[in-house]
Amino acid sequence: MQQRREKSPSLAWRGRRAIASAIDLRSDSAVSSNGVAAATLIPTPTKDLSSGASDDPPFGILYSENFTIRCYEVGTNKKASIQTIANLLQEVACNQVRTLGFSTDGFATTLSMRKHHLIWVTVRMHIEMDDYPNWGDAVQAQTWFQENRNGTRRDWLLKDVNTGLTLGRATSTWVMMNQETRRFARINEEIRGEYHQYALDPPRFSFPEDHATYKKHQLAKLENAEHHITGLKPRRADLDMNQHVNNVAYIGWMMESLPADIANSHELRGIILEFKQECKHDDCVESMAAKFSPADQSGDEEHQFLHLLRLDGSSREINRGWTHWVKAKESSQQGA
Amino acid sequence: MQQRREKSPSLAWRGRRAIASAIDLRSDSAVSSNGVAAATLIPTPTKDLSSGASDDPPFGILYSENFTIRCYEVGTNKKASIQTIANLLQEVACNQVRTLGFSTDGFATTLSMRKHHLIWVTVRMHIEMDDYPNWGDAVQAQTWFQENRNGTRRDWLLKDVNTGLTLGRATSTWVMMNQETRRFARINEEIRGEYHQYALDPPRFSFPEDHATYKKHQLAKLENAEHHITGLKPRRADLDMNQHVNNVAYIGWMMESLPADIANSHELRGIILEFKQECKHDDCVESMAAKFSPADQSGDEEHQFLHLLRLDGSSREINRGWTHWVKAKESSQQGA
Repeated sequence: MQQRREKSPSLAWRGRRAIASAIDLRSDSAVSSNGVAAATLIPTPTKDLSSGASDDPPFGILYSENFTIRCYEVGTNKKASIQTIANLLQEVACNQVRTLGFSTDGFATTLSMRKHHLIWVTVRMHIEMDDYPNWGDAVQAQTWFQENRNGTRRDWLLKDVNTGLTLGRATSTWVMMNQETRRFARINEEIRGEYHQYALDPPRFSFPEDHATYKKHQLAKLENAEHHITGLKPRRADLDMNQHVNNVAYIGWMMESLPADIANSHELRGIILEFKQECKHDDCVESMAAKFSPADQSGDEEHQFLHLLRLDGSSREINRGWTHWVKAKESSQQGA
Repeated sequence: MQQRREKSPSLAWRGRRAIASAIDLRSDSAVSSNGVAAATLIPTPTKDLSSGASDDPPFGILYSENFTIRCYEVGTNKKASIQTIANLLQEVACNQVRTLGFSTDGFATTLSMRKHHLIWVTVRMHIEMDDYPNWGDAVQAQTWFQENRNGTRRDWLLKDVNTGLTLGRATSTWVMMNQETRRFARINEEIRGEYHQYALDPPRFSFPEDHATYKKHQLAKLENAEHHITGLKPRRADLDMNQHVNNVAYIGWMMESLPADIANSHELRGIILEFKQECKHDDCVESMAAKFSPADQSGDEEHQFLHLLRLDGSSREINRGWTHWVKAKESSQQGA
């Protein structure tokens, strides 16, 4: 049942270059290594899921949990869908902050944050998958967060519990927002003092994508895309505890505008979401996608797309996105 | 965190009468007790989740598994949604048939079934919930199946692992269908011989709703309902391993046509789904709902609705439904 595809170093590097190109269509520059050198990269995974080394951070700062993939969490290719992966990332992050004692209203708010009506919001999410687990497979999700200039960065590492192989990596960027004015807020020293002790220090990146790179390479905005679908509406079940459309619903909408031949015969290797605006229950959404092919890709083996979700009949953006698709093996077809 | 509401016997009985009335709007008869007397009803739940009695059926025939409710599985009221409950019922049933050695293509097919291109399809599902678990709560789901005249009946019992209290009960009816002609098929002795040994005998019902009652009290078909919504489309993520829209998506569509004041201030106590026709990815669906108030209900405390899902602009039914809503406590508002 296990058919793991470990990327060769050269392929992994090509993947990174391709991502960098897609991130900013106006630039051909490779991923900047600024800041990465100072951080510890996750070592090559081994059979032993937890290192147990003496320099491990205090309990709870690196937080892990195992999850079994359920039958309704797999797609038509019988593997976990990207929505399932995103859900598990959310679950393990929520469980960490709850374990650490934060309130989960507004995701991990501190006492001072609640006093000032401040909440954490995610502005960016990046997931890279080497392979997807099957129904019944046990997955270890590890997560931690670290401070950056304007907020926090949360990373994840997903491993197959049985083989110890890495299935995927993810990173996200979080900033503070005033719950009433919906405007971004600066983090003061009082608030920082409440979560600083739980941040991983020195930082450790699940993959080498540093804050400086992100700032320079925001996703381009699509205007008139070749593939689009209108009239997408949130369902009641898409609303989270805080009455907003769950971020994972955005992934589903991005997939809706994708050409069927890609969705049915390719597997998603990477996805970036840039969250621009919250979506509410009575909004109506348009999903757009356009193919983007870097020079080092050939034929039907690999495809990259840029995505845009916006309010129907309006220029108000909800979400920008990027996806990377690789031709699925015969047994894994119909992979969206 | 535990706020369990155990129904008093009289309330439970009133609930049953109300269901019977809703099941057939053309009849005032109470639930028939035909067949129920001959079956063992599930005993009042105790702190001990498994009885361990010497007359327990062989291993695997009564199958149990524990699940932890994840943060993305709760709704705006911070409790598990009915979709989550339906998903868990599906998961524990799939895990049982896999454990027993059946193929899970077409749900629990036997060797002879595959030879004759036959699959199991569910034609009816009935869930009754006393209470819903919160994020992080552990739920024990127990399931078993038993033979009936034209196929099988599968039952479930959901308990709170921590308190041992019953959270809900469910039952479903399964018949055999030819995968190519999509017509119902009779079960021959060869096929019956392959699953007979795994059926619970004597039968045990999670709640007293026998096959005879079901046959007599099919849900009425809605024609022009006061609440309706059109243009509902399956998303890629709604497709299951077998390329059909997952049954749980139907529940979401039923909720979409429900008036907001009911969905936001009431909790779902019971739901019946009668599956009429499979739905595919490019179908467009209309959801209709109409209030139905039995004489023994008063004010805003309780509501019952009849539902219909049909192909947009057509009379072709996908699904008939019935839901039962009870005013939520202040802390559980926004309950859909």
